[in-house]
Amino acid sequence: MSVILTAFEEAGMTEGMKRISNKVGLPPGTLVHIGEQRSDKVRIKVIEYGEEHFRERDLFTLDDYSPSKDASVVTWMNVDGLHRTEIIEKTGNLYNLHPLTLEDILNTGQYPKIEDYGEYLFIVLKMLYYNDSVNEIEVEQVSLCLGSNFVVSFQEEAERDVFDPVRARIRSGKGKMRTMGADYLAYSLIDAIVDSYFIILEKVGEKIEFLEEAVVNEPTQRVLQEIHGLKRDMIFLRKSVWPLREVITGMERGDHQLIHESIHLYLRDVYDHTIRIIETIEANRDILSGVLDIYLSSISNRINAVMKVLTIIATIFMPLTFIAGVYGMNFKYMPELDWRWGYPAVWLLMGGIGISMLVFFRKMKWL
Amino acid sequence: MSVILTAFEEAGMTEGMKRISNKVGLPPGTLVHIGEQRSDKVRIKVIEYGEEHFRERDLFTLDDYSPSKDASVVTWMNVDGLHRTEIIEKTGNLYNLHPLTLEDILNTGQYPKIEDYGEYLFIVLKMLYYNDSVNEIEVEQVSLCLGSNFVVSFQEEAERDVFDPVRARIRSGKGKMRTMGADYLAYSLIDAIVDSYFIILEKVGEKIEFLEEAVVNEPTQRVLQEIHGLKRDMIFLRKSVWPLREVITGMERGDHQLIHESIHLYLRDVYDHTIRIIETIEANRDILSGVLDIYLSSISNRINAVMKVLTIIATIFMPLTFIAGVYGMNFKYMPELDWRWGYPAVWLLMGGIGISMLVFFRKMKWL
Amino acid sequence: MSVILTAFEEAGMTEGMKRISNKVGLPPGTLVHIGEQRSDKVRIKVIEYGEEHFRERDLFTLDDYSPSKDASVVTWMNVDGLHRTEIIEKTGNLYNLHPLTLEDILNTGQYPKIEDYGEYLFIVLKMLYYNDSVNEIEVEQVSLCLGSNFVVSFQEEAERDVFDPVRARIRSGKGKMRTMGADYLAYSLIDAIVDSYFIILEKVGEKIEFLEEAVVNEPTQRVLQEIHGLKRDMIFLRKSVWPLREVITGMERGDHQLIHESIHLYLRDVYDHTIRIIETIEANRDILSGVLDIYLSSISNRINAVMKVLTIIATIFMPLTFIAGVYGMNFKYMPELDWRWGYPAVWLLMGGIGISMLVFFRKMKWL
Amino acid sequence: MSVILTAFEEAGMTEGMKRISNKVGLPPGTLVHIGEQRSDKVRIKVIEYGEEHFRERDLFTLDDYSPSKDASVVTWMNVDGLHRTEIIEKTGNLYNLHPLTLEDILNTGQYPKIEDYGEYLFIVLKMLYYNDSVNEIEVEQVSLCLGSNFVVSFQEEAERDVFDPVRARIRSGKGKMRTMGADYLAYSLIDAIVDSYFIILEKVGEKIEFLEEAVVNEPTQRVLQEIHGLKRDMIFLRKSVWPLREVITGMERGDHQLIHESIHLYLRDVYDHTIRIIETIEANRDILSGVLDIYLSSISNRINAVMKVLTIIATIFMPLTFIAGVYGMNFKYMPELDWRWGYPAVWLLMGGIGISMLVFFRKMKWL
Amino acid sequence: MSVILTAFEEAGMTEGMKRISNKVGLPPGTLVHIGEQRSDKVRIKVIEYGEEHFRERDLFTLDDYSPSKDASVVTWMNVDGLHRTEIIEKTGNLYNLHPLTLEDILNTGQYPKIEDYGEYLFIVLKMLYYNDSVNEIEVEQVSLCLGSNFVVSFQEEAERDVFDPVRARIRSGKGKMRTMGADYLAYSLIDAIVDSYFIILEKVGEKIEFLEEAVVNEPTQRVLQEIHGLKRDMIFLRKSVWPLREVITGMERGDHQLIHESIHLYLRDVYDHTIRIIETIEANRDILSGVLDIYLSSISNRINAVMKVLTIIATIFMPLTFIAGVYGMNFKYMPELDWRWGYPAVWLLMGGIGISMLVFFRKMKWL
Repeated sequence: MSVILTAFEEAGMTEGMKRISNKVGLPPGTLVHIGEQRSDKVRIKVIEYGEEHFRERDLFTLDDYSPSKDASVVTWMNVDGLHRTEIIEKTGNLYNLHPLTLEDILNTGQYPKIEDYGEYLFIVLKMLYYNDSVNEIEVEQVSLCLGSNFVVSFQEEAERDVFDPVRARIRSGKGKMRTMGADYLAYSLIDAIVDSYFIILEKVGEKIEFLEEAVVNEPTQRVLQEIHGLKRDMIFLRKSVWPLREVITGMERGDHQLIHESIHLYLRDVYDHTIRIIETIEANRDILSGVLDIYLSSISNRINAVMKVLTIIATIFMPLTFIAGVYGMNFKYMPELDWRWGYPAVWLLMGGIGISMLVFFRKMKWL
Repeated sequence: MSVILTAFEEAGMTEGMKRISNKVGLPPGTLVHIGEQRSDKVRIKVIEYGEEHFRERDLFTLDDYSPSKDASVVTWMNVDGLHRTEIIEKTGNLYNLHPLTLEDILNTGQYPKIEDYGEYLFIVLKMLYYNDSVNEIEVEQVSLCLGSNFVVSFQEEAERDVFDPVRARIRSGKGKMRTMGADYLAYSLIDAIVDSYFIILEKVGEKIEFLEEAVVNEPTQRVLQEIHGLKRDMIFLRKSVWPLREVITGMERGDHQLIHESIHLYLRDVYDHTIRIIETIEANRDILSGVLDIYLSSISNRINAVMKVLTIIATIFMPLTFIAGVYGMNFKYMPELDWRWGYPAVWLLMGGIGISMLVFFRKMKWL
Repeated sequence: MSVILTAFEEAGMTEGMKRISNKVGLPPGTLVHIGEQRSDKVRIKVIEYGEEHFRERDLFTLDDYSPSKDASVVTWMNVDGLHRTEIIEKTGNLYNLHPLTLEDILNTGQYPKIEDYGEYLFIVLKMLYYNDSVNEIEVEQVSLCLGSNFVVSFQEEAERDVFDPVRARIRSGKGKMRTMGADYLAYSLIDAIVDSYFIILEKVGEKIEFLEEAVVNEPTQRVLQEIHGLKRDMIFLRKSVWPLREVITGMERGDHQLIHESIHLYLRDVYDHTIRIIETIEANRDILSGVLDIYLSSISNRINAVMKVLTIIATIFMPLTFIAGVYGMNFKYMPELDWRWGYPAVWLLMGGIGISMLVFFRKMKWL
Repeated sequence: MSVILTAFEEAGMTEGMKRISNKVGLPPGTLVHIGEQRSDKVRIKVIEYGEEHFRERDLFTLDDYSPSKDASVVTWMNVDGLHRTEIIEKTGNLYNLHPLTLEDILNTGQYPKIEDYGEYLFIVLKMLYYNDSVNEIEVEQVSLCLGSNFVVSFQEEAERDVFDPVRARIRSGKGKMRTMGADYLAYSLIDAIVDSYFIILEKVGEKIEFLEEAVVNEPTQRVLQEIHGLKRDMIFLRKSVWPLREVITGMERGDHQLIHESIHLYLRDVYDHTIRIIETIEANRDILSGVLDIYLSSISNRINAVMKVLTIIATIFMPLTFIAGVYGMNFKYMPELDWRWGYPAVWLLMGGIGISMLVFFRKMKWL
Repeated sequence: MSVILTAFEEAGMTEGMKRISNKVGLPPGTLVHIGEQRSDKVRIKVIEYGEEHFRERDLFTLDDYSPSKDASVVTWMNVDGLHRTEIIEKTGNLYNLHPLTLEDILNTGQYPKIEDYGEYLFIVLKMLYYNDSVNEIEVEQVSLCLGSNFVVSFQEEAERDVFDPVRARIRSGKGKMRTMGADYLAYSLIDAIVDSYFIILEKVGEKIEFLEEAVVNEPTQRVLQEIHGLKRDMIFLRKSVWPLREVITGMERGDHQLIHESIHLYLRDVYDHTIRIIETIEANRDILSGVLDIYLSSISNRINAVMKVLTIIATIFMPLTFIAGVYGMNFKYMPELDWRWGYPAVWLLMGGIGISMLVFFRKMKWL
């Protein structure tokens, strides 16, 4: 089974599905964490910044925290770890998030989507890592709530994310980051996630190139399973990326006040990247179908090659063995047996038959 | 034949189709129960509730029942069993249901749909169970009539449904249930049905994982039929779920007064679940195609393996048998026969041929 | 060749196509009967009815017939047999039908369609019968002209149609039939035709079930042709039913006065049936593809089984024959030949080889 | 290679493509004939007609020709042969045709299209012939310019076209032809072309029927190439016919004054024919895929049959040859050899083995 | 591996993808050249022209260059080579290009697109060459900025482009070139690029024709890889050409002032070419699928042919060898051995068996 496949299965598709069945029957808005608990820590990082202002804090409790009232200050609160639902609930209370939003944050089997709750936009995304040590893709759900001057992001685990470059840009104060609003921050986070897909596609591209060689040189059952695994991965990736188009279109087109028109050009850029990723996924699927065709015909070719060897051997030796058998018969009256040159003559006959067979095979292009 | 398949065939697709042919020629609006009679009982359960009010009754006749006139009271009448058409007709009279509605309720071969009859919305859904004891999926048609302050639901059988959690929430009086109207009740019922699909998909997912192993380890004809059966199941599931999108969109978009705007957020949630189910079904179909490819190539691989054994044996023993045949000839003048070391020399020759064949097979990677 | 296929070919697709080529070059509006002449009779049945009124006549000539002027009377004129074009022309004159309408009525290679000629709607449909005696589907084209208070229907032959239940309802005077207008009559006729498709689909469903067994048990070339024939039938059926959607939508949406709004609910019902038929056809196509896959793999499995028998026999007897050959050599100095227990020892050796081969085959799961 | 295929390749797709590369780099509007020069003649036929008027002339030069100024006279100028670009240019000057129009007329690799140049409509079509003598389809591009009272048509060659019935109707003065305007003439020409496609489809249908038999009876490599050739033909036909829909819709929907509303009914008729042709092409593609499946499985069946013969022979004779080999051994102490009935007993043994093998094969249904 | 494939991989798809991962994390608008550095030179060519005016300069620095202020003069600045980002930046400053535009120019992994920046249109295109010497397709990204009276074009390398005919037309002063504005220049450049695709398609067409012969005559694994390579090329070409439709529609439909209405007719012409290219690509994909089918069945046919030879040999010689074995047995009492004509009789018997086998094979059509 493809290692990538397994990773997807565990982290996303199958699990999210399994867990949701445990929740069947509960009233809507009940907060239950659906998904794997990745770590026991819950980490909250709050970054507040403005043109002149920058403050970064790590919180372990939300009890004595209250959001900045200053409209010119952008607050980015990042929550890592979803298993302690009371923290998610408190965060929801701080920013007035709807119960259905909180429910979706905790259910890690979501597909990317955007929902407009009036006072804030709720965006669900998938973050993918390629874990080089175990050669696996890992999936993490990221939820963003974009308000007028805040972004709250929720991740499944604390160990890592793809947002470090964004943090660095905020800290450094270079570029546009500090002068722009929360919408630009949200754009930057989405952009960071979309960019990370290119790394996954690179790895997939390398794997496909490897398989294209393997199907010709050693078309084993294992190679077939790798192809099948990559196809499943493409199916899963497609499901993760496809709705992104609508998410970004939704951000751009919506007539909500939360996203300033100056951001549209940037969103269009992310949109273009998304299109490129989708088309590369589609192209990969087509190419994998082609690789499968080569695989299947490689096996046929091998059967053919085996058949040829068998036929050559049988076609040469069956007549010869027959002749030897004839002169092994015990008839009393077999004149050839008494001939002086009978034995060499038989050898000549057999040699002639063998050589004419070889000529025939060369004509058939089997040799 | 896949057990799942059989279940679908009997309960839904084929049967519904067969029965409708018995009705061909009758005028529209004629009440005939088209479908299997699942039980002989007809059970009617009426739940009336409001913010302060709760009453639950089991009726066996509708003769002395009249719906509550109190607009603040929501009435949920659930009818189990469709074979006694006079009860369906009486229910229709109580709530002013159109004859075509009643006809559709009785015809259990419907696909999910929504119809706006002005005073009420008529919604048809499919409820699926996974019967663990016989390893089968079972299908039941559920029809909902949503009026301003009532929901009438019709089921095929009385034994079970997926609505118990909803009933429990109404009884307990916790959550929003009692404070919301009939539209929220209808939403809750639909949500319960949609959630139950996830359980089916889990079972299907497990079966696919099982098949993914089986096609490699023992690709029997039976495994192929299982794949075919699951594909049929996906085709059927897709037909049951696909129209749900339009049903929910129809509820959300319609400018009818029956569904309050506050419900839209909840409907959007069910819509998202529906999309996820559809995409999982599509993904399953793609994966099953891949599994089929592995199956077919497994068979080719097996033919190839058999061929190799045959070819190895034949290629080694045909030349050896030929040599033995040569020295079994009865020519008078065969000098080798008289040599002192002729017999051992022939063994050496045959051993050399055998070993060089084995070297050849190792080079061909057949060993 | 599938008998169903043949029926379609003759009656519909191929013939209609062939005949139209005979008409190439004639000016538009020329009345030529394109299609098979099914019978020599032309039968005209006129039914006039109103709430209080009912009259049924069989005409053999239109010379002394004139349509009723009474707006409250609905006239249904049914013409069986298209080969006497002068009768079609006269009917056209009676009801002011456009020459292109008449041309389409006579050309039996049409697909279902609706055309709005202002004063009347022109509807083309396909009526299908399953002829049990010869196990064949038969196709007949039905054209309807729906005016304000008349319906004129044209059929290819007089022997039979699916309209008897409609006639019975008119005669009996029960139900809504007599109180509704010509639009309800047209709806009833279309409904009767659509209902008849379910019978065809039942027969096809039975055939598919039969084939699903046959491909496993005896995958002969004939079974493959049956599958191919059913696929062709599905292609043809799809072409006949698909445009029906637009026909019914066209009736419902058109802002013409000919169809009263009260009929819309009934049309929606027919529309639902059409959708079900189309989806069943699509599902059948998918299932037939799956059946084909099973067929192909059945053949592969059979090749595999044959190969195994061959390999088992060859692998056991080739080494044994070789050993027998060795001790059939005539070397002077072969010590084994003179041993007292040489012969039994060889038998033991050969038995050992045979048994170890059988053990090997059991390990390979070939036995 | 299919003869049809070859015809298409030469006349249309490949050639048009090849030639256009010679023109790469020239400024737009440069008149270069791209395509095969079919004949050396250029023939111009001018038909002028009105209700009372008819005149037909064959011109060899345009020097002393000027179009009729009489608005009630319809002029149809038909130009056969495109290689003398100065004549095309002169015609263009006479009727004020745009340089891009002339360029498109000369480039015979166009797909059907309609362009509205304000004063005239420019329509490109493909005319197909089935050349019975060489069993080939031939393609010719026809360009129509429809003005207020003229139609100018351009064809590639003079030998033939499908317009003779139209000419006959004009000459005879019967039917509507003479009383209608240039738009009706244009419709008649398009109708004639579309009708000619039915003849091609008939020939293709016959070929498919032939192939359906051939794949079962003699599935040679040549049959496969015929299937491939027909598939290519369908691809090409589809490309030629598909844009016709838009052409006719473009004529109907355009709010230009050039096409009178009374023509719309006729155009709708051509549109229906086009739809039928497209659907028949699609159906043919599906059927050809099915034929291919039968072909591939015929080959598998043949391999299977060959395998069975081989296995039967080998399974019967290998054990017998082994037994003969045993009693050909030269051991000193072989008691059976000295038995009186040893030889007949061996024959009995071998007969028994042979017969039990035959019984086994009958049980396996190989005989 | 197909040489074409390799070319695409290196120049476009894979590389562009790989490089972009190096840029992940940088703020938007950072200028980094993503792509292969094709040459070390950067060449800037400025052509200024008007009805009366023409000036052509090669610049090596932009320090002392300033764009013409004269509105009647059209300036075409062509920049070859993207690796010196400071030059790109300076050009951007000269013409007020947005940072995102410059970023896109430098990222050579873009797909064709059009973006409206208000004061200028930004168009990305792919230019394809067929390098005859190495039999490879090469890809180069061309970016166009179309302002009111200027076009700035950026190419990846200086060695060559497809714009020479356009330059020649400007220099010569013939045709419309000099009298039209910058929009006509932009059209001419796009037209030149689109025309160059036809040359690629010609080469692909030739390759397909070659493969169609090869799959029948020598269906080697290499041929399969060629087919796979061409399929990949079609996938890539499709991705390069498909968005062109939207680019041209975007130019035509946009209500911006930059493109004069008189250009629309010309754009429609390019649009038609684009459609033809896309349809040829699609047709090629379909045809390649057909070629693959022939390939696979060629292999099956070959297996079949090999099987037949094997079966013929085995079926003839196995019975004969058996007979010879029988008379090689050493039983004491074998009357045949003592017969005078025993030996010739056995020859007759064996000849009879051989001949009847040959007759059987002729009946089976194996000979």
